[in-house]
Amino acid sequence: MTLGERKIISLIYDIIGDSLSSLLPFNDDAVAIEIGDKVLVINTDMFVRKTDAPQGMSSRQIGQKVIVMNVSDLAAKGATPVGFLSALGFPSDFIKNDIEELLYGFKEACSLYRVPYLGGDTNEADDLVITGIALGVTNTDELISRAKAQEGDIVCVTGIFGKTAAGFKILLDNLECPEHLRDEFIETIFHPQARLDEGIALAKSRIPTASIDSSDGLAWSLYEIAQASNIGIEINKLPIDLSVEEFARINHLDPFDLCFYGGEEFELIVTIPAKKIVHASAALNAVKGQLIPIGRIVKAKGLFYIEGGKKREIFPRGYEHFTKH
Amino acid sequence: MTLGERKIISLIYDIIGDSLSSLLPFNDDAVAIEIGDKVLVINTDMFVRKTDAPQGMSSRQIGQKVIVMNVSDLAAKGATPVGFLSALGFPSDFIKNDIEELLYGFKEACSLYRVPYLGGDTNEADDLVITGIALGVTNTDELISRAKAQEGDIVCVTGIFGKTAAGFKILLDNLECPEHLRDEFIETIFHPQARLDEGIALAKSRIPTASIDSSDGLAWSLYEIAQASNIGIEINKLPIDLSVEEFARINHLDPFDLCFYGGEEFELIVTIPAKKIVHASAALNAVKGQLIPIGRIVKAKGLFYIEGGKKREIFPRGYEHFTKH
Repeated sequence: MTLGERKIISLIYDIIGDSLSSLLPFNDDAVAIEIGDKVLVINTDMFVRKTDAPQGMSSRQIGQKVIVMNVSDLAAKGATPVGFLSALGFPSDFIKNDIEELLYGFKEACSLYRVPYLGGDTNEADDLVITGIALGVTNTDELISRAKAQEGDIVCVTGIFGKTAAGFKILLDNLECPEHLRDEFIETIFHPQARLDEGIALAKSRIPTASIDSSDGLAWSLYEIAQASNIGIEINKLPIDLSVEEFARINHLDPFDLCFYGGEEFELIVTIPAKKIVHASAALNAVKGQLIPIGRIVKAKGLFYIEGGKKREIFPRGYEHFTKH
Repeated sequence: MTLGERKIISLIYDIIGDSLSSLLPFNDDAVAIEIGDKVLVINTDMFVRKTDAPQGMSSRQIGQKVIVMNVSDLAAKGATPVGFLSALGFPSDFIKNDIEELLYGFKEACSLYRVPYLGGDTNEADDLVITGIALGVTNTDELISRAKAQEGDIVCVTGIFGKTAAGFKILLDNLECPEHLRDEFIETIFHPQARLDEGIALAKSRIPTASIDSSDGLAWSLYEIAQASNIGIEINKLPIDLSVEEFARINHLDPFDLCFYGGEEFELIVTIPAKKIVHASAALNAVKGQLIPIGRIVKAKGLFYIEGGKKREIFPRGYEHFTKH
């Protein structure tokens, strides 16, 4: 494979860009079109077992995760799910029990996020390939792109980062971890959750200027907002848990890396006009969510973390298929 | 692989059936939901190169065919396309030029069928895997399922069958064929076409009681209508071209087999109340299509071809992944 995922995306833009018809900018979390007086938001994610399933993830957990990945993008756009479809490619080693477990995973997660399962297609493939397709609806004035963050807006997240990165360090690099934290970190990998109620509540408040989910990692997602909105970002607080800091200390890791350069996390990152931060926070609290301010949108391009008056660059690195192999 | 595609489909029904939410019956050509005062029709098809691409099909032709497969199902439901998405899994041997060709194939076919390209996802996979997702809209009273064929209805098709089957016999089994027919037959494999204008015209006429596309072969598609509508079908005319009969004669094949047991053909099969056949035909002629009556819906279950007073059973055989390998 000579091309990375992001190069392929720009190839798509070069060739089909002039006829793209989404209400959202190219390469946003999802696409959107008007249907009657509603806005339909559609997201598709392809899950390939070899690339995307951590060792030890069960078929049921894969089923659940595919729903979470797709619902998370609807959440970032503030859309209420109205349906889910799947196109399933099964390899020859995938037995009846695996298929049943996968379907129960779908069923459980669809029920959790109130997404009606609609149907789909099946085929034969060399590896387990699951294309999830999530459909959601919203209204024109509630659709949030990633491209309208404004200078002075507060950058907020809906939860903390780093547990998933710590979990991968434990699973893949066999790093040390106190038992009581180990389970908690690994749980975030095998049972991710989408911030659906939070995304819908934020959209209904009509307050956020931009929104993205963090599935490609915090650093990369901030970079995407900055690029799309043509602004810069200064982070002044690491959205990280004490437990992740403890894990970092034990293993001589930099908490900064665990926080920014993870991935497979499904928090929302939103930008909020400064004087509306109290309202946005109240909207989230009403659905038992939390809005954590971590920085600010600035005019000068670039991503920086300001700590004790020192500027540290946040590089646009993140979880990417292809090139990391 | 121990399970065939149709067994997997019934497994899906067993596990998720109670929560299915489509306006169309389970396992129809597409799914449908209400969005405001419109009906959104969604179809997804997964194309896997190893299983689905005939030897010699170019990346550009694959791109075009994926659009045709998906649009054809919208056509069968009478929906006007409003968008197309793709989830693309690229193998390591797929170079930049292949990707470009595939995208140009998308672009050309999207333009031909007036389908706006919206976006999608990319990933890494062992084989080229393309999930196409087509979105269309229609109105509640114009949506055609495959489940409402009535006794006495005339079974009609929008074109003839057998050229594709003949093409595959030439390509795969190296059968004899006069040069002037060879190109024509093989063309139907590499450049299939969807009957979109025909499907929309039929839906707008509100005349058909049932509709399906014939991508799984004429016999299997008739069987699907019969099963879903709980009726039987008697065919009294083979919808076949003289050229296919000539090919059958040269190679000592039964034209019946070429006509019924092919696949990868994209004609529509519709059932029309007998007294409305002239109106339906006029609706098709208005878009330069043709309505070819080939038989009749009967009360007694079963599929038969009546020829010179003799009944010959049409078996529910067709193109299926998995079990044919």
